[in-house]
Amino acid sequence: MKKRLLTGDRPTGPLHLGHYVGSLRQRATFQKQYESFIMIADGQALTDNFDNPQKITTHVLEVIKDYISVGIDPEYATIFIQSQVPEIAELTLYYMNLVSVSRLERNPTIKAEIHQKGMGETLPSGFLCYPINQAADISIFQAEVVPVGDDQIPMIEQTNEIVRKFNRIYDTQCLKECQATLSPCSRLIGIDGGAKASKSLGNAIFLSDSSEVIKQKVFQMYTDPDHLRVSDPGKVEGNIVFTYLDVFFDNKEELEELKAHYRRGGLGDMTLKKLLLKILEDLLAPMRERRAALSDKRLWDILQQHTAHARSVAAATMREVREAIGLNYFSS
Amino acid sequence: MKKRLLTGDRPTGPLHLGHYVGSLRQRATFQKQYESFIMIADGQALTDNFDNPQKITTHVLEVIKDYISVGIDPEYATIFIQSQVPEIAELTLYYMNLVSVSRLERNPTIKAEIHQKGMGETLPSGFLCYPINQAADISIFQAEVVPVGDDQIPMIEQTNEIVRKFNRIYDTQCLKECQATLSPCSRLIGIDGGAKASKSLGNAIFLSDSSEVIKQKVFQMYTDPDHLRVSDPGKVEGNIVFTYLDVFFDNKEELEELKAHYRRGGLGDMTLKKLLLKILEDLLAPMRERRAALSDKRLWDILQQHTAHARSVAAATMREVREAIGLNYFSS
Repeated sequence: MKKRLLTGDRPTGPLHLGHYVGSLRQRATFQKQYESFIMIADGQALTDNFDNPQKITTHVLEVIKDYISVGIDPEYATIFIQSQVPEIAELTLYYMNLVSVSRLERNPTIKAEIHQKGMGETLPSGFLCYPINQAADISIFQAEVVPVGDDQIPMIEQTNEIVRKFNRIYDTQCLKECQATLSPCSRLIGIDGGAKASKSLGNAIFLSDSSEVIKQKVFQMYTDPDHLRVSDPGKVEGNIVFTYLDVFFDNKEELEELKAHYRRGGLGDMTLKKLLLKILEDLLAPMRERRAALSDKRLWDILQQHTAHARSVAAATMREVREAIGLNYFSS
Repeated sequence: MKKRLLTGDRPTGPLHLGHYVGSLRQRATFQKQYESFIMIADGQALTDNFDNPQKITTHVLEVIKDYISVGIDPEYATIFIQSQVPEIAELTLYYMNLVSVSRLERNPTIKAEIHQKGMGETLPSGFLCYPINQAADISIFQAEVVPVGDDQIPMIEQTNEIVRKFNRIYDTQCLKECQATLSPCSRLIGIDGGAKASKSLGNAIFLSDSSEVIKQKVFQMYTDPDHLRVSDPGKVEGNIVFTYLDVFFDNKEELEELKAHYRRGGLGDMTLKKLLLKILEDLLAPMRERRAALSDKRLWDILQQHTAHARSVAAATMREVREAIGLNYFSS
């Protein structure tokens, strides 16, 4: 039997190349190796967007379009909407009894996010507790494989702590521990050179960008500010175009030659940018075509069917969870 | 249309005379006036008994026996088990986005309980958040009447704060504010003179106690320690037997005469205790008979049917809640 995998995204906007190299690309590979559950985490996104729910709900369909456009195949992967699996909320409440407030406050990922979002007195209890909700997401599907970025490792540790504590207290084996699978490339810099391409910083190339927009974004990338004439020697390190070529240009031999040429002078920025643009277009054009062929109705049908399947898997775990606690009054 | 009422108990042990005068008696009166929902709060009880679930689950049946024995009529009131209405958990998670951690930490009831239970570093997040869970209990049933003791007033305030905030943010009227209905007698002292009769202090007369046990408990009550001989004058204030007579003896004229007689001397403690015993027996014997006539199977059937009804009411509210947030993807 294949191991289960759980992964997903908060539907807060369209997905971009950072998501692609960080996780989406890997998912398309993993989907035949593992029984994949891919969650559109609208409930989790509401923990810090509760006063702007449209931002979340309007992006659900965009996210599944992004998924299918990169090659995630609904014949293999189960793509579902978190809020429509209320069993996750039920499990979250039982888990909340097992995790102290002080343990949550020590979670490094949460600490960093609270700081970054400037939450102090206003920190919603739902946001503080979202690692518990995430532990429920993972374990309700008995997922053993969880692809994450390295900033998410504390979430996996928290999940396994809860799973062990639950199994011990309620003398059961009904929950499984999981393992983080780190992405080979967990971060893509922004087109402005920022540490991370991100929707909110507006420095990302989206999977759904048109050719024209991609061209604008590539052409505005900084290269080496001292590389004024084509004949000047240029720097490769810190050069955003080369950083993107490192990630997206598969012909490493040719890339090394280009770097050497650029370093000694004689290779123009425009030549480089045109190369990057061609590579990105070769990657993104088929996605754009696949996306154009998708009908909204068909996607909602997939989401509804897949969510029903996800619910049945979650419900089976919850039956075991309730039985372990002793809450199966009517079935015994 | 009748207003809805919600009330309930944590199933942590058998109910006692303190519960009877504090709430159960009133419920039997309210059940024809309001559409009553009476919740056996096993989920809430787990927030501070998660490591001893049997303590909770084994008392569910005892609690409904207590209910029916005091005259709560399953033809009128809906008696249901909280954990079997998972919609409450779902609503709780959405409410958690609306309540800050610091607001929870300021709740006076919770502060007192955390102190009393000696929770510090170990404070479970589920316990800190149980007022949110309680707000979901009340509002998911659209309850407008909530009978409580005065120590529970902060819980009602918290509930109405959440309801107003939800209705405002999501531009809806789907949730109703509620009103606390204070019991005329919210506290009964213990048979040892302790401030409150309580299961955990072992100073309560249980509704299910046998005649023999009640006799022992009444006969061990302190009266006036200086009232050594029958002919001595005695004190009425602080005399536990008189405190119980104040609550349970309906003939107030005769009670005043007894107090006067006791004060001037010539009325023996044993005479008083026999009177109290007779009054309590007259109250409790019919309960004992009603209890003996109940079959476990019939009670589980009632619980199952009533819980199904409670679930359908809760599910209707959740449909409106999801629609208000915009999470009705598949129904629109």
